[in-house]
Amino acid sequence: MELLLTNASFGGEHRRYRHTAATLECQMEFSIFLPPQSLAEPGRKVPVLYWLSGLTCNDENFMQKAGAQKLAAELGLAIVCPDTSPRGVNLPGEDDSYDFGSGAGFYVNATEQPWAPHYRMYDYVVKELPQLVESELPVSAEKSISGHSMGGHGALICALKNPGLYRSVSAFAPVAHPVECPWGQKAFAGYLGGNQEQWNQWDATLLIADAQERLPLLIDQGTADQFLAEQLNPQALVRACHSVNHPVTLRMQSGYDHSYFFIASFIDDHLHHHAEALGLAQPQL
Amino acid sequence: MELLLTNASFGGEHRRYRHTAATLECQMEFSIFLPPQSLAEPGRKVPVLYWLSGLTCNDENFMQKAGAQKLAAELGLAIVCPDTSPRGVNLPGEDDSYDFGSGAGFYVNATEQPWAPHYRMYDYVVKELPQLVESELPVSAEKSISGHSMGGHGALICALKNPGLYRSVSAFAPVAHPVECPWGQKAFAGYLGGNQEQWNQWDATLLIADAQERLPLLIDQGTADQFLAEQLNPQALVRACHSVNHPVTLRMQSGYDHSYFFIASFIDDHLHHHAEALGLAQPQL
Repeated sequence: MELLLTNASFGGEHRRYRHTAATLECQMEFSIFLPPQSLAEPGRKVPVLYWLSGLTCNDENFMQKAGAQKLAAELGLAIVCPDTSPRGVNLPGEDDSYDFGSGAGFYVNATEQPWAPHYRMYDYVVKELPQLVESELPVSAEKSISGHSMGGHGALICALKNPGLYRSVSAFAPVAHPVECPWGQKAFAGYLGGNQEQWNQWDATLLIADAQERLPLLIDQGTADQFLAEQLNPQALVRACHSVNHPVTLRMQSGYDHSYFFIASFIDDHLHHHAEALGLAQPQL
Repeated sequence: MELLLTNASFGGEHRRYRHTAATLECQMEFSIFLPPQSLAEPGRKVPVLYWLSGLTCNDENFMQKAGAQKLAAELGLAIVCPDTSPRGVNLPGEDDSYDFGSGAGFYVNATEQPWAPHYRMYDYVVKELPQLVESELPVSAEKSISGHSMGGHGALICALKNPGLYRSVSAFAPVAHPVECPWGQKAFAGYLGGNQEQWNQWDATLLIADAQERLPLLIDQGTADQFLAEQLNPQALVRACHSVNHPVTLRMQSGYDHSYFFIASFIDDHLHHHAEALGLAQPQL
């Protein structure tokens, strides 16, 4: 693991690392925010929020634009941001579109060639990356997960498919029902092939009914989001939750769009949600 | 004035505008954060913090990376970010270096050809832009000013050269004594020519002695800033202040660098500083 960059941040540290990801058969970069508590005492380990970003992003967007570090520093919460796909693996067409290939791994394990050996972002974010950061950095195995758009959906399926692994989950403007929207259909057809039974294993709305753990879902969605009608469909997810009494809170945020200005406006609410589940003391208000 | 973009943000709005800047003889873009108070009641005007960015930045960096909107929304403070130079004026060499020409206007009024007719960023940020936003947007003439690096110095000279215009001033890692550092010497030679008497009129450290208003200076400087030794020299400014009892607070922030991670970590302290001077009620802590 190679340290690329360190920046002091709110008494803690923002760092970028590069490592060889066995799961993806390529080099990957990730960013981490380590709160001051994790650096103050040798041996002290803090819980982690994993943040999965959306289409076209890499590991940097959230750290630069979400404004999460101030409260994370107060809470004693680390944040880990993986990249959104393998990079530089030289597959034909990998850079041809913003919603497939590079920057668009969709947090699934591809089964179709030529994507299969590399595009296994689900295993990477659920298994390999947490194992790496837990062994190399002052963080514990206590974890929560959140994300935005493609990554909001990624957070939901990581939690739904791994009962007991995450203490809490939330999402901003998730692609809530990918088998029924253009982004999801393109990604699933490319990574998973034509068998829609396979697709269904990677769709949060379809996973709700049989979820083995009823972890409450906190979802924020802007009403002025340009992708709401065609791509996101949070109401489908909410209906699926209601039909099996899966706890869900969908907050429709009036006038907000799909940008990081939206995420920044509500990230603190999500951090409080995760901090409570992780047993972190909340700052006095 | 053409509205390019609106994003809801912390109950207020982030907006980008394009307009024809008479001072610069070109089209310019700027960003503004309007807090919720300015949008809630017709006729309500809020004070403004002008933020001057550093080399290579445009009007977007601060709005995306500083994390200032949350507290600005609570305070009822608008923030205006101009660009850092004229753009697209087709001068020979304008895009050849990161520290001169495009993205590097240094907030002076150029006297040398071919820069003189366009590179008048001082007049633009002190006069034209405030007049425009005060006439077109729900903001008052009550104003403060801050900035980073080249823009931190810009904020200092705008305040020092205009007694009574700003209620308060602050800076992050300013180029504190430009006539004595490579960035400043390159910019001043290019924009102002070879007469160093002219340069001295645009150097904050040299303006302190004769300042007509002893507005307190709040300055944050990271100790791990890669430009500290060669370019920034805040101690020269502090010595000049001490010699004439100009109030100055220089906070050396241990381990912090020149990045927006540094700015984000301390921007709230600066907003409180400006809010107090502007008579804004501070949020209950």
